[in-house]
Amino acid sequence: MEQEFESSLLEGAVTELSRLPGLGRKTALRLALHLLRQDEEQAVSLGEALIAMRRGIKYCTVCHNISETDVCPICSDPRRDPSVVCVVETVKDVISFEKTRQYTGLYHVLGGVISPMDGVGPDKLEIDSLVDRVKGGGIREVILALGATMDGETTSFYIYRRLGDTGVIVSQLARGVSVGNEIEYTDEITLGRSLINRTLFADSFGNG
Amino acid sequence: MEQEFESSLLEGAVTELSRLPGLGRKTALRLALHLLRQDEEQAVSLGEALIAMRRGIKYCTVCHNISETDVCPICSDPRRDPSVVCVVETVKDVISFEKTRQYTGLYHVLGGVISPMDGVGPDKLEIDSLVDRVKGGGIREVILALGATMDGETTSFYIYRRLGDTGVIVSQLARGVSVGNEIEYTDEITLGRSLINRTLFADSFGNG
Repeated sequence: MEQEFESSLLEGAVTELSRLPGLGRKTALRLALHLLRQDEEQAVSLGEALIAMRRGIKYCTVCHNISETDVCPICSDPRRDPSVVCVVETVKDVISFEKTRQYTGLYHVLGGVISPMDGVGPDKLEIDSLVDRVKGGGIREVILALGATMDGETTSFYIYRRLGDTGVIVSQLARGVSVGNEIEYTDEITLGRSLINRTLFADSFGNG
Repeated sequence: MEQEFESSLLEGAVTELSRLPGLGRKTALRLALHLLRQDEEQAVSLGEALIAMRRGIKYCTVCHNISETDVCPICSDPRRDPSVVCVVETVKDVISFEKTRQYTGLYHVLGGVISPMDGVGPDKLEIDSLVDRVKGGGIREVILALGATMDGETTSFYIYRRLGDTGVIVSQLARGVSVGNEIEYTDEITLGRSLINRTLFADSFGNG
């Protein structure tokens, strides 16, 4: 392919930047020219941080979350309850749950959800390793915390069946009206579920 | 500041990415997690390309365009006409004009336009060096190719006055209806200018 820019160094940087999702060549050029206007230190720090991150981060052998060590800090934290495992789709979901500061159990990162449309079957996800982990003993409850989407629900049901003979408690996140949302703007399926799964008002003060 | 992520390598990469203009921490995290899912080679290539670009690219001592050499390939190209200099705001504008393949003269990159609102005075731009270049001789025409904005027009007028006693021809880009645009959607100031500066129809076939 013909070079777009006179400078092959600029061409290289723009090409590499535009391989990132959501960045077209126009945006990539804008970012590259911005870096050229800054101190050399900024581009060097960015470049080195990306390389160090990719080289230094691996996946936890227990829960498949990102980790700088074989077993991640969450799995090896003695203050956390190893008898509860929250099953999530991605590493980002672990970050979201950690930010709530409400959860003290461990995680299991699937790496996606079953999606026949995208050619993702159960074998491409960390489902076998979840079943093995539960069969290994010591786990009382598995919380399915996947998206409330068609693929998420399918995956939850698949995992529920796979765990059927282990005797573990399988729960899932409550479905209901989002905090801060008006009833008027809540869809009817969510409203229906929130009615069926209604909770005692007194419990909403956190002493349930 | 407290770390947002357990991994300081992820924290470092997200922090550096989010220093880029237009990238918030959410987008930075998305990009970092994307790189973690790709082959190590991709993050390393990106990091190295950014560092190599920043270290290898400097500014042409003649026209102030980006260059890997002291004098850029455009300024040192013997096939180009050194008697015509096109004054542009940024490096990006040089790329845009080069893409037209219509221009065979040289450039002068100002590095911005005069903008009292943003605290940019003439001394922060490559205007003195333009005047020196013209006074150095050998230049017949200076084409002002700045934006048709308030700041762009102010800067053009300032440069026009600074070049007043050099005897050089000072021209500016034609203002008119954008190619592909309907009259209906063209603003009245542009329409007025396009009427005053109308050209002979026969000239539009390129033989003018």
